[in-house]
Amino acid sequence: MDVDAATGGAAAGTANVGVVGLAVMGSNLARNLASREGNTVAVFNRTEEKTRALLDEHPEAGFVPASTYEEFAARLSKPRTAIIMVKAGAGTDAVIDELLRVFEPGDIIVDGGNAYFPDTIRREKAVRETGVNFVGAGISGGEEGALTGPSIMPGGSDESWATLGPILKSIAAVAEGEPCVTHVGRDGAGHFVKMVHNGIEYADMQLIAEAYDLIRRGTGRSPAEIAEIFAEWNTGDLESYLIEITAEVLRQADAETGKPLVDVILDQAGAKGTGAWTVQTALSLGVPVSGIAEATFARSLSSHPEQRAAAADLPGPQEPSLATETEGFIEDVRLALFASKIVAYSQGFDEIRAGAAEHAWNIDPGAIAKIWRGGCIIRAQFLNRIADAYAAEPDLPLLMTAPYFTEALSRGQAAWRRVVVAAARAGIPAPAFSSSLSYYDGIRADRLPAALVQGQRDYFGAHTYKRVDKPGTFHRLWSGDRTEVEV
Amino acid sequence: MDVDAATGGAAAGTANVGVVGLAVMGSNLARNLASREGNTVAVFNRTEEKTRALLDEHPEAGFVPASTYEEFAARLSKPRTAIIMVKAGAGTDAVIDELLRVFEPGDIIVDGGNAYFPDTIRREKAVRETGVNFVGAGISGGEEGALTGPSIMPGGSDESWATLGPILKSIAAVAEGEPCVTHVGRDGAGHFVKMVHNGIEYADMQLIAEAYDLIRRGTGRSPAEIAEIFAEWNTGDLESYLIEITAEVLRQADAETGKPLVDVILDQAGAKGTGAWTVQTALSLGVPVSGIAEATFARSLSSHPEQRAAAADLPGPQEPSLATETEGFIEDVRLALFASKIVAYSQGFDEIRAGAAEHAWNIDPGAIAKIWRGGCIIRAQFLNRIADAYAAEPDLPLLMTAPYFTEALSRGQAAWRRVVVAAARAGIPAPAFSSSLSYYDGIRADRLPAALVQGQRDYFGAHTYKRVDKPGTFHRLWSGDRTEVEV
Repeated sequence: MDVDAATGGAAAGTANVGVVGLAVMGSNLARNLASREGNTVAVFNRTEEKTRALLDEHPEAGFVPASTYEEFAARLSKPRTAIIMVKAGAGTDAVIDELLRVFEPGDIIVDGGNAYFPDTIRREKAVRETGVNFVGAGISGGEEGALTGPSIMPGGSDESWATLGPILKSIAAVAEGEPCVTHVGRDGAGHFVKMVHNGIEYADMQLIAEAYDLIRRGTGRSPAEIAEIFAEWNTGDLESYLIEITAEVLRQADAETGKPLVDVILDQAGAKGTGAWTVQTALSLGVPVSGIAEATFARSLSSHPEQRAAAADLPGPQEPSLATETEGFIEDVRLALFASKIVAYSQGFDEIRAGAAEHAWNIDPGAIAKIWRGGCIIRAQFLNRIADAYAAEPDLPLLMTAPYFTEALSRGQAAWRRVVVAAARAGIPAPAFSSSLSYYDGIRADRLPAALVQGQRDYFGAHTYKRVDKPGTFHRLWSGDRTEVEV
Repeated sequence: MDVDAATGGAAAGTANVGVVGLAVMGSNLARNLASREGNTVAVFNRTEEKTRALLDEHPEAGFVPASTYEEFAARLSKPRTAIIMVKAGAGTDAVIDELLRVFEPGDIIVDGGNAYFPDTIRREKAVRETGVNFVGAGISGGEEGALTGPSIMPGGSDESWATLGPILKSIAAVAEGEPCVTHVGRDGAGHFVKMVHNGIEYADMQLIAEAYDLIRRGTGRSPAEIAEIFAEWNTGDLESYLIEITAEVLRQADAETGKPLVDVILDQAGAKGTGAWTVQTALSLGVPVSGIAEATFARSLSSHPEQRAAAADLPGPQEPSLATETEGFIEDVRLALFASKIVAYSQGFDEIRAGAAEHAWNIDPGAIAKIWRGGCIIRAQFLNRIADAYAAEPDLPLLMTAPYFTEALSRGQAAWRRVVVAAARAGIPAPAFSSSLSYYDGIRADRLPAALVQGQRDYFGAHTYKRVDKPGTFHRLWSGDRTEVEV
């Protein structure tokens, strides 16, 4: 097939940006790019049919097609800028190799897929040695966001950002007048922050699911009635895309059975792995992200039907109904949801802080909060409060200790406790609510039983301990006369 | 230095086993080996001073020293069997390379360090290609266990086990007449199981710490009084080494201040990383190990003093005292501890099941429970119940669904709920207790709000869902007319 013939032959070097990989995400991103003033977009796909289909369906875009990597490179103005939109993994490496074959020093390769950030660090290092720039860019917002304006989290060098910044700003979502894109930091910083975004998303979704379940099972309200509660919540502190779509999902009836849609959907949650990455990375960094972990585990628990069947006869409490004053309980759930959400975001930003320190990335957490306000799944008013908190205190040790959040937590903690108490009593699982409250009570505790753990570790493994009253490292001669020695 | 001269010159090939690395763990293991009938032990250390010191201090052991790897190999009878006892990491690879230089096909290299099991899989594969056998063996029990009888978890080939089995059986702990060692499975299976052992240990310790904290803060008992409670518990279902040493630690007074030792120990718990590995691996396997995760996070939370200081003013509940009937509360905590412990072990054995399936290891979970009954940190009567459960039903989908455990959970669940309720009300963090209860209520739930999560995922990411009433995969046209399509 002769692509040139079909388009009348585009002149060399006319496109300022190119997209490789034209599945839905890639096509939508290419269309988004083409729709913005000043962009001319070269497109390439391994199987040329997809390129052809995109051109046929969207003549308005003025795409510059290419049927080989050589042609693709020839169509791009310098420095060449190509955004790879292929499934994360080995395919990405293959495309990078092809582009390196035809690109020159100073050109820019952007990986817009959902890469695991250590892979991005590795790729950036390898590509940099050729003189070409490599930028791992997290792109959030799904297929719709790719088309109309995603939230974009690019890493990579300052040099790349100079060329890439204006292009990405042209297609990003806009929130309160600002484009939802910022140069996150060097090499893998962008994909790292995108990963944490997804982890927070898991926690947010699980918290909403627990709130729904508590109201449903605790008060007997129907999904449609609960949809209205979420719609109402969406006008206050909790205002967010996820609360909004929860109302939409709960409102929906199944055409076939007439039942609420949520009752015909199989209750086994899937996962693409980014929640697990977030928790695995946090464990390596020593950051407690218990809310994200519980959300990730709740999905895997749900997806083991054989275990659930075997456990179905385990007994619940005698008093399965919450039997509380209903209106008050719903407001308690709202406050508990907001408090737990603060903990989840605080833990996520703690991971960003720790990751930035570990990898010497100069990440501005307030700027991250701002670019999440539009385009992405966790977009919410709430993010403005996070940006404010970091603007007021850039070195905040923990997000939840900023005044706005301490005030919200203070206001909500009694209700939060009542909800966790009600869930435990009624036998309704609320792992993320409970875990967040435990974290809250742990981080504010004057003394923790970690001292006993250190005593145990010294007993069985001579791991030593420190003292509250003087410096030094000590060990007890447990097998001997049990005196203390300084080591 | 001429080691030969010092020992009168050992004949070639007289030692049936050798130890490389003579720090405390290695020296103790070598002494243990030498003390058993039929063993003659060759010893080697990179710095010869350590070899000399060991020989001087333990002439009774009849060690056969070597000052070079060549000499070490010459002193071993065939098939040569060497146990490496060096710090896990690059040092292990260096020693393996040296041994491969002087060993022959059919010889056996054992890594007795705390290696991460993927490293063991990698090393086994590389070493196997030379014809030499490589065995990763988890050794639990610390310095004391190495000397008097550890629990040993070897992986590797059947061929290695034929030679190695009798040697390891000679030095392992003995529980109820059986040596605490079994051939766990191929390549990395031994280190994998040792890793999960350590993860379970984290959960067990955290649960004990929470029980202590709840009784201390909830009833005002002193550490010495609580020591007596743990000593009493150690005569029942909870009987275990960890409960026993907890009583010992709590009984201890600080000589300098007269205060309870646990009050002068800094409440920041350390970790060597095996808990994190267990959780990271479980996340990759899709196994919810929330108890181990919360225990790991509790340690990292405790070790961020700057965050704890910033959060110290966050408010707690109005009713900080539990103000319940004290004796009943303590019995409730005992029951809650046992129930939570069942969940932690059930999650750990679930990870072993999943890991065995993933790596095609033929692991007998009952045999693992048996070899943990002696020598290791989590040794307990309780492990006999686990062995019984798998003997009765080898394909048990989840340990907690075996009759003994369902009975214990049924008996304990009301108390467990009261304890979680009391902790939430009093503002005492009990993350592992709460998380285990949430898991219990989740796994036994008829319906989970995972259905709502699937609805949300389908809405924002077209991730599709399954239905409860028919096969197939479905998507709702959320941006269109919201009809359902089969995909």
